[in-house]
Amino acid sequence: MTLHSFQPTVYYNTLGTAEPVLTIAPGDSVQTTTVDAHGYDANRAQVAASGNPMTGPFFITGAEPGDTLVVHIDELVPNRSYGWSGLLLAPNVVDPDFVPHLPWPNDGRRHLAAWHVDAAAGTATLVEPAVAGGLVVPLAPMLGCFGVAADVGQAISTATSGTHGGNMDYRGFAPGVTVYFPVFVPGALFYLGDGHAVQGAGEIVGTGIEISCDVRFRVDVQKGRHIRWPRSETATHILTAGNARPLDQALQHATTEMARWLQDEYGLHPTHAQTLLGQVVDYEVGNVFDPAYTMICKLDKRWLPQLSQ
Amino acid sequence: MTLHSFQPTVYYNTLGTAEPVLTIAPGDSVQTTTVDAHGYDANRAQVAASGNPMTGPFFITGAEPGDTLVVHIDELVPNRSYGWSGLLLAPNVVDPDFVPHLPWPNDGRRHLAAWHVDAAAGTATLVEPAVAGGLVVPLAPMLGCFGVAADVGQAISTATSGTHGGNMDYRGFAPGVTVYFPVFVPGALFYLGDGHAVQGAGEIVGTGIEISCDVRFRVDVQKGRHIRWPRSETATHILTAGNARPLDQALQHATTEMARWLQDEYGLHPTHAQTLLGQVVDYEVGNVFDPAYTMICKLDKRWLPQLSQ
Amino acid sequence: MTLHSFQPTVYYNTLGTAEPVLTIAPGDSVQTTTVDAHGYDANRAQVAASGNPMTGPFFITGAEPGDTLVVHIDELVPNRSYGWSGLLLAPNVVDPDFVPHLPWPNDGRRHLAAWHVDAAAGTATLVEPAVAGGLVVPLAPMLGCFGVAADVGQAISTATSGTHGGNMDYRGFAPGVTVYFPVFVPGALFYLGDGHAVQGAGEIVGTGIEISCDVRFRVDVQKGRHIRWPRSETATHILTAGNARPLDQALQHATTEMARWLQDEYGLHPTHAQTLLGQVVDYEVGNVFDPAYTMICKLDKRWLPQLSQ
Amino acid sequence: MTLHSFQPTVYYNTLGTAEPVLTIAPGDSVQTTTVDAHGYDANRAQVAASGNPMTGPFFITGAEPGDTLVVHIDELVPNRSYGWSGLLLAPNVVDPDFVPHLPWPNDGRRHLAAWHVDAAAGTATLVEPAVAGGLVVPLAPMLGCFGVAADVGQAISTATSGTHGGNMDYRGFAPGVTVYFPVFVPGALFYLGDGHAVQGAGEIVGTGIEISCDVRFRVDVQKGRHIRWPRSETATHILTAGNARPLDQALQHATTEMARWLQDEYGLHPTHAQTLLGQVVDYEVGNVFDPAYTMICKLDKRWLPQLSQ
Repeated sequence: MTLHSFQPTVYYNTLGTAEPVLTIAPGDSVQTTTVDAHGYDANRAQVAASGNPMTGPFFITGAEPGDTLVVHIDELVPNRSYGWSGLLLAPNVVDPDFVPHLPWPNDGRRHLAAWHVDAAAGTATLVEPAVAGGLVVPLAPMLGCFGVAADVGQAISTATSGTHGGNMDYRGFAPGVTVYFPVFVPGALFYLGDGHAVQGAGEIVGTGIEISCDVRFRVDVQKGRHIRWPRSETATHILTAGNARPLDQALQHATTEMARWLQDEYGLHPTHAQTLLGQVVDYEVGNVFDPAYTMICKLDKRWLPQLSQ
Repeated sequence: MTLHSFQPTVYYNTLGTAEPVLTIAPGDSVQTTTVDAHGYDANRAQVAASGNPMTGPFFITGAEPGDTLVVHIDELVPNRSYGWSGLLLAPNVVDPDFVPHLPWPNDGRRHLAAWHVDAAAGTATLVEPAVAGGLVVPLAPMLGCFGVAADVGQAISTATSGTHGGNMDYRGFAPGVTVYFPVFVPGALFYLGDGHAVQGAGEIVGTGIEISCDVRFRVDVQKGRHIRWPRSETATHILTAGNARPLDQALQHATTEMARWLQDEYGLHPTHAQTLLGQVVDYEVGNVFDPAYTMICKLDKRWLPQLSQ
Repeated sequence: MTLHSFQPTVYYNTLGTAEPVLTIAPGDSVQTTTVDAHGYDANRAQVAASGNPMTGPFFITGAEPGDTLVVHIDELVPNRSYGWSGLLLAPNVVDPDFVPHLPWPNDGRRHLAAWHVDAAAGTATLVEPAVAGGLVVPLAPMLGCFGVAADVGQAISTATSGTHGGNMDYRGFAPGVTVYFPVFVPGALFYLGDGHAVQGAGEIVGTGIEISCDVRFRVDVQKGRHIRWPRSETATHILTAGNARPLDQALQHATTEMARWLQDEYGLHPTHAQTLLGQVVDYEVGNVFDPAYTMICKLDKRWLPQLSQ
Repeated sequence: MTLHSFQPTVYYNTLGTAEPVLTIAPGDSVQTTTVDAHGYDANRAQVAASGNPMTGPFFITGAEPGDTLVVHIDELVPNRSYGWSGLLLAPNVVDPDFVPHLPWPNDGRRHLAAWHVDAAAGTATLVEPAVAGGLVVPLAPMLGCFGVAADVGQAISTATSGTHGGNMDYRGFAPGVTVYFPVFVPGALFYLGDGHAVQGAGEIVGTGIEISCDVRFRVDVQKGRHIRWPRSETATHILTAGNARPLDQALQHATTEMARWLQDEYGLHPTHAQTLLGQVVDYEVGNVFDPAYTMICKLDKRWLPQLSQ
């Protein structure tokens, strides 16, 4: 149950079988930092290549292919005041014939909004461009990209996501949440980064308020628990994440994973599980911007049978 | 501001230019009834052809193409105790290779779950099939299918939806909500039906708890307000509905309509509107079962500028 | 076996249960004309409302719901020299971020290319805009939109397509081809129009070379033959058409209909039919522009068992 | 202009930056072998892990990121007589409610069809399961999976495809064809494998007739030619390949790449290029089975301007 303090010096833009930066045991916690999506740290110095550079990978002893890695996000706090975001809707989230009417910058370059993030006050204030009346949004820090080394020896870009997690950009992956990942390689190789101070559903401007963060997480290993897609748990809900395009397919993955969970682990008869889901299930859109979209399937824990321990 | 009491004797399975059953004025209310999706009424007598038979159409005086019809759902209460639902996940919401593992009935016939709906207690209790521990869900009545006569002289099946509304199966279309429809024909021709006592997001078993209802609604007309997709408003949110397949396209319609609303009616600069949506927007899945899927784009009213009246 | 000569005076923009313009018998032929997609006739006079106005409907005696209507396209010839087409790629067929780079006209209006169509020479010559070296393409006339009254009492816009046919915009629907439509209403109610002098696969500029035509077709009725989607037959192939979005779903419909055809009508064992299709099937993209996309599934007749007559 | 003879001893299941097995120069040819999708060689001995194991990678001297690798497929011949294929339609290519009606094996295991491939006779004969009348299809060997090391340091599974090529399963990638790949890493790192003796469009049973092959290919490097997606050229056509889901997006990629090719390399004005494509473009379905689908956009060379050399 060690608390490791880890300061990254190397960052990765793929989730694959890189050399572990630290070996930790089930039950251990790690206090570390993440840089923003462009590779800038707490001092706004670029220390990593752009494109969701990851802190890690962490090797978790005992984790073997076929197991499940448990990650508790215990703390996630922006560690600087400068955040940035996109400022026009992503072309793929609007009607194709509306695309020319987006507020494209005249100079053809990609512009970004600048935000002042005040972690103590819990707010992000739009600095530039100025808008009439100003704009202040409440902080809700989340991890945009995290997960484990992908399957079959792949190294998958941190731009996208899959069964291994990755760039899911779901705002529910926030402090207090537990996330479960399938383990594909010995040690699982856990990576994390791409903190957002705030993000709307879908990440429809292509970013949240991107920022570097201090983060503390805790891991565990569930031997022999086989899951197919990332799962998650909050105080009130269980959740599954499907990552694919189109959104329909992401929803199919998440729904199937939820049905399997209820049927295979909670022991509900398929008719029971499915009749129940039909009347009480909920969905959340993770992202509809990245190469793979993310759909979350959600069930209130009140509907779960008491599991014998 | 008349309250009309209307008892339907004819029902329609398309939303087109049928003969109006009643002419009402802006500001008027109508107290009426709807039958269930199979055409059964409060007495469980089949009085209409299966497939979401509609009560209406109501001709609203003064409504012309290019205007917006306003519908307030003031009351919606199941008027019998028998409800029914699907009991296996729809094949299109799960992974294709999971389809053979759904609990298909052995006899090849479509089976339905039976529910006891207690409007006073606010509960629906699963009667058949029996499941271990029983299943009781709280009532949350909603209108599955309602809208206006479709555009360009079409008569659109109540199985599907479009710019005219229709079978959106969004559980947020519930008492207390105001819905806005584009008007395509003189009098708008408003139809309603397909009440659900309860429904999960997505209508993923292909039904809610289907039931006949007593309903009271009130209409208004906004002259010259041109909208492209159904919009809605609650005490706390404004919403837009996009109807299409895949879900990505439904989301594009809803998002574009929301951007237009903020930019064209609330007067936000596009950069303001879009930067805002990026960090605070929300989505809800209406249905992912019907020929057209429904995606809801949602914005908390706290983000709206005060409109000059 | 009458040859009817029919000069239309009324046109429809939906495929529904309109009053028949002519009643014909199985085996009969009809010589008639179609106007272009904007409603202009052989004299370039606008005689119908824009949006694929249809000639018809023709009531075919003996056709009942559950039967199949057979349509032979015996002749299709442009009857004027002026044709028009789109001149930029439709926003929905290119990458979303390429949309702003399409050659949008500066004045914000929709411009069209003008073509000189020479039916005798079998060519269409681009007249405007002028392009370096000129552009002459060989004629290959086809029917963009044709079909029967839709099911469940619907009237479906000629902008789109479905199980009833409609605006499939498949260039293979050309002289010499036989097309089969499911019959949904007594008399089938056959409509046709939207002739194209030429069209590439997918109709990716949103139009073919649009033109008015002389057309001669012949009908037949297959009593009790139940099909679910339009089918077709040429000298060398059998084809099925699926109409939906996304293209994946259109392909699913077409493939399923082909499997049913081989299994249910040609009597192939499912394993035989499917193993065969896997190695020899072909597809063609009908359209990827209209509200429903069209995918064609195609099988060379050499693979068909000899049917006992 | 060396002809290398290379006998593989190691195979890869991802396309990434593995150690090159051979360094070759632009203009060189390689005579080598590929194993089948399950890793079995000419002697039906398993020599590699299942899942499209690749021969290679070949390091091409002078190829740098931003260049284009040219691959000529000069010869491709099955080198054994045993081929295998799927024998039921993939669940994702049929209507979801048709999935339970596929000929699923009773024992729940995945069965395969066995074929006798006679390269001299140019035929594949179905051996098992037996079907009435037998089934003999003409050989048309193709490479299912080939391409270069993926971008941003990724190692991408040979199950899927992307801008780097990979498992496109397009039957047009056959002897006589030239293929162009974007280069992402020094030396390009070319891989090839997954030969099919025959395959229908779409690979709709999930396989072609899978077999090990003898293959001879020749490479070249085009310095500074920047392409975004694989392109190809035959005696009569130029082609672009888009890889994504849904098929709509694959088509968007392929169409955009074709427009860029015509506009940026052939110098056609966008209006010329797009008006032309609208009336003469063709598409072919590569695969609709793999994680990314493949759509081919095709243009007859008759429409190309003479390029100044």
